[in-house]
Amino acid sequence: MSGDHGPRIIVPACFSALRRNPFLQIILVGDPAQLSLLLANTPSELSSRLSIHPASEVVLMDDPPAQMLRGKLDSSMRVALQLVHDHQADACVSAGNTGALMALARHVLKVIPGIDRPAIMTSLPARSGPVHLLDLGANVDATADQLVQFALMGSLALELDGVAQPRVALLNIGIESIKGSQQVRLAASCLEQAGTLNYTGYIEADAVFRNEADVVVCDGFTGNVLLKTTEGVARLMATQLREEAGRTLWRKVLAVLNRGLWRELGRRWSPDRYNGAALLGINGLVIKSHGGAGERAFLAALETAARMSLEDLPARLAQRLDALDGTHKAAR
Amino acid sequence: MSGDHGPRIIVPACFSALRRNPFLQIILVGDPAQLSLLLANTPSELSSRLSIHPASEVVLMDDPPAQMLRGKLDSSMRVALQLVHDHQADACVSAGNTGALMALARHVLKVIPGIDRPAIMTSLPARSGPVHLLDLGANVDATADQLVQFALMGSLALELDGVAQPRVALLNIGIESIKGSQQVRLAASCLEQAGTLNYTGYIEADAVFRNEADVVVCDGFTGNVLLKTTEGVARLMATQLREEAGRTLWRKVLAVLNRGLWRELGRRWSPDRYNGAALLGINGLVIKSHGGAGERAFLAALETAARMSLEDLPARLAQRLDALDGTHKAAR
Repeated sequence: MSGDHGPRIIVPACFSALRRNPFLQIILVGDPAQLSLLLANTPSELSSRLSIHPASEVVLMDDPPAQMLRGKLDSSMRVALQLVHDHQADACVSAGNTGALMALARHVLKVIPGIDRPAIMTSLPARSGPVHLLDLGANVDATADQLVQFALMGSLALELDGVAQPRVALLNIGIESIKGSQQVRLAASCLEQAGTLNYTGYIEADAVFRNEADVVVCDGFTGNVLLKTTEGVARLMATQLREEAGRTLWRKVLAVLNRGLWRELGRRWSPDRYNGAALLGINGLVIKSHGGAGERAFLAALETAARMSLEDLPARLAQRLDALDGTHKAAR
Repeated sequence: MSGDHGPRIIVPACFSALRRNPFLQIILVGDPAQLSLLLANTPSELSSRLSIHPASEVVLMDDPPAQMLRGKLDSSMRVALQLVHDHQADACVSAGNTGALMALARHVLKVIPGIDRPAIMTSLPARSGPVHLLDLGANVDATADQLVQFALMGSLALELDGVAQPRVALLNIGIESIKGSQQVRLAASCLEQAGTLNYTGYIEADAVFRNEADVVVCDGFTGNVLLKTTEGVARLMATQLREEAGRTLWRKVLAVLNRGLWRELGRRWSPDRYNGAALLGINGLVIKSHGGAGERAFLAALETAARMSLEDLPARLAQRLDALDGTHKAAR
């Protein structure tokens, strides 16, 4: 029900996801009247895998997360999380208020033992394939212990996704050991001493885009700034390129002749492909879509959820964290 | 003497700067033997405005800043700052160790009264002209009071540079008043209550590139991450564009026909134009060049120094801060 565009883009994205994923089933949680209207022209071959679960309220983008724990007990967000809790769904996907989603996920699904605070992880485009970044704003700051937990969670999530010995780095403003805040320096010495992860040291923000690590760990404030800077710069450069390429008639003619290039760049530079951030550390699979996601982007978030639910990430994360955390604590 | 390329790029950049700025005089501080060799082929019309001031040591990129206060008393960096202190130079430009430059600048030139900690400000490319960002890493964290001081310094620097009522915003991970760290929220309420600046509220990192503010204020860790993310994304996109545009013979032919476009993009996207960050709050003009700056980029830093020295920014900043700080304190 939420996000900038609401069910208007979510319902068509669900149609695409069902078409592309024959074993997927989707439960739309929200206002039945509004959803039924949009479902009126559901392709018949999809209708058996698409259902509505009623919820009478909606968490708004500016609702204070803490209030959502006591109020709006029948919000679509809370009801969707409850379906995951009750094993009626394998994952919850939301484009709504991030803070509220995190607060409700912690409340309804609980946090995996050994994790102080969950973190949000997404992938970013880089030179030779995606890089994973966490935290993205679940926590405005992070203690050294929490940064270490983020590193563990991110590394394990990538390992389960098929990356052998993911290279884990701590985001810092220099690569020398004396650089950075106290928390970052302390987290670095914990990770070095524990030796359980493939920890590669500090990474600067520009090196993230050269794939100098597979998992980049930072506090939520910094991660959010890095992510949004990426969006801002990419949009700025794409706009300037479009402008310059259409400045004269001659350039316009060349652009038409070169349309294969522009199509390919549009595909490579689309942020849609990277939509779908995982709330790691929650005892259940919760995927956050960008609030401004369009149909294609929301489809990417749905497919991230579908793929991750096959691996039962939260359960395997809990097992592995339990073992790793023991080793890690022993090493300290 | 420092930076990634040392005097090899600095000397030719000085030739260009002298050629382009007929009233500029440059003192090269460093090893006379090394510098004399590079000055051997100085164009005769420039030689009267270029001199060497000897310094026997060099601050290295990994020298701990604090140690530079006691050791390397004859480093080129320290001697150059001393020349500013002694009014033998109007500004000091360095491509060396940022932390050491800041520490030595504070030690040799002192901090303007009313400022707790100086900040580093640079300009970034955005949709409709440059945006100014501070702090860039002088301080890994910042209290609310320090963020307010950064806002005052950035706003005044822009005003002196001809921007009427610069729009000042605090970098945050959301624009709602409940978002962000405690320091950021506290700084926001100080700026709102003081009312001395054209404070426009929070800004998210993507909005920076849409010119939603003229001055963007954050702690040094965040600013450094924002700046380096900008560099990383810009380089990634430029590389991918070059790759795609040269993938087939047909595209290569079109690229040759469209060389005006590529030249123009090269110019617009070059980070060289934005080189030269000011150490605001220091009682003397100090400009930090990117360590990896090439000749053109170092020229930009030299010209920033030349332009700012005409305005005697530090003195005017001190006067205005004195007045404003009084108003600001009274308002609280």
